[in-house]
Amino acid sequence: MSRAEGKRVAILATDGFEQSELESPKSAIENAGGEAFVVSPNTDRIQANKHREHGDTFAVDVHLSEADPDDYHALLIPGGLFNPDALRINEEALKFAASFFDHKKPVFSICHGPQVLISADLVRGRKVTGFKAIQRDLENAGAVVRDEAVIVDDGLVTSRNPDDLDAFNEKLLEELCEGRHEGQDKSVAA
Amino acid sequence: MSRAEGKRVAILATDGFEQSELESPKSAIENAGGEAFVVSPNTDRIQANKHREHGDTFAVDVHLSEADPDDYHALLIPGGLFNPDALRINEEALKFAASFFDHKKPVFSICHGPQVLISADLVRGRKVTGFKAIQRDLENAGAVVRDEAVIVDDGLVTSRNPDDLDAFNEKLLEELCEGRHEGQDKSVAA
Repeated sequence: MSRAEGKRVAILATDGFEQSELESPKSAIENAGGEAFVVSPNTDRIQANKHREHGDTFAVDVHLSEADPDDYHALLIPGGLFNPDALRINEEALKFAASFFDHKKPVFSICHGPQVLISADLVRGRKVTGFKAIQRDLENAGAVVRDEAVIVDDGLVTSRNPDDLDAFNEKLLEELCEGRHEGQDKSVAA
Repeated sequence: MSRAEGKRVAILATDGFEQSELESPKSAIENAGGEAFVVSPNTDRIQANKHREHGDTFAVDVHLSEADPDDYHALLIPGGLFNPDALRINEEALKFAASFFDHKKPVFSICHGPQVLISADLVRGRKVTGFKAIQRDLENAGAVVRDEAVIVDDGLVTSRNPDDLDAFNEKLLEELCEGRHEGQDKSVAA
C-alpha cells in the first residue's frame, strides 16, 4: 500500500508523550508509504510515558527551532500529560502548530494533544474531541465538542484516547492523502 | 504555634499528585495546630509524583464516598498532572469540592489543582492563578487570572507551582484561621 507516498508528516512531541499515540499513527503513516518526522524542542531523544510509567525513548529527527512547516504536509500532536503541558507553554511550538492551520493543512491530535491547540487558540468554532478530562477546556475555548472515537472537521482529526487509535489512524490517512481541502486553500506559495 | 487549633482540612487527592504540594501545606497546617486528612477515591494509599518520576505513597484517611464536607473547615487540592486529571472526571470529587464553595469555606489549590475547579465550574468571575500551562484554561472558564505567586479571593487561595509554596502556605493559614468570611455565610446548619 503506498497511498501516502510522498506525504511528510511532522510529529510535534517532547518528553512524556503517550507512547502508543506516537508509535501507532507513525506506523500507520509509514505503512501507507508516507514519512513521519519527530519534531521536538528537545535535542537528541524524547522519552515516552505509558500512562504514569516511563516508556521507550525515540530519536528526534528535527529540532523545533530548525523545523520549517513548509517541509510537511500535515501535523500530528500526540497526547500524554507531560507532553502537551510542556508544548502549550512553548511559543515556538504554538507558532509551528498555527502554521499548519494557516495553510489549511491536515492536523491530527489525540487525547491531551488538543491542549496545545487551545493555547494556540486554534479550536474556536471547530468540531473536535479530546480526552474526557479536557473536553470542558475545549468547550470553554470555543470548540464544538463531541464525545466520539474520532471527529473530522475540515482536515482536523481528533480522538479521545489510545482505544480510539484504529479510528484515528484511518481518518488521519484519509485526510493526509486528500491533502488540502478544495476551496479552502489560502496562499501557499512555498 | 496553635492558631489553627481545631481546624480540619480535607486534602482531595489521588495517584499522581505532586508530592511537595501535598506534603508542604499539610505540614504547615499541622505545625499551626490544625489537622489535615487525605480524602481520595482510592482506598488505602495514593502515590505521589515528583514531576515525571514517582514519589512516596501516602495513607488515605477517608474514602471519598464516605467523606462528609461538613466535617471539614477547608479544602486543599494539590497539583501534579495525573491527580487533577483523574479528579476532574470524578463526579463525586466535583460535588465534594463544590460543597466547600457552597458553604463559603476556604479552598486552597496549587499548580494543576485548579483544573478540578474548572470542571466543577467554580472559577467563573473569581480571581485566581495556576500553573502557566492552565492559565489559558482558567481564563476560558471565566476566571480573572494573574501570574503571581499567590492570589487570594474571598477564601480561595491559588498558586502556580512548588516554588510558590511558602507564599501559598502563609495565605492558606491566614484564610483557614479567619474561617468563613463575614457577610458571606450561606446557611450552614450542620
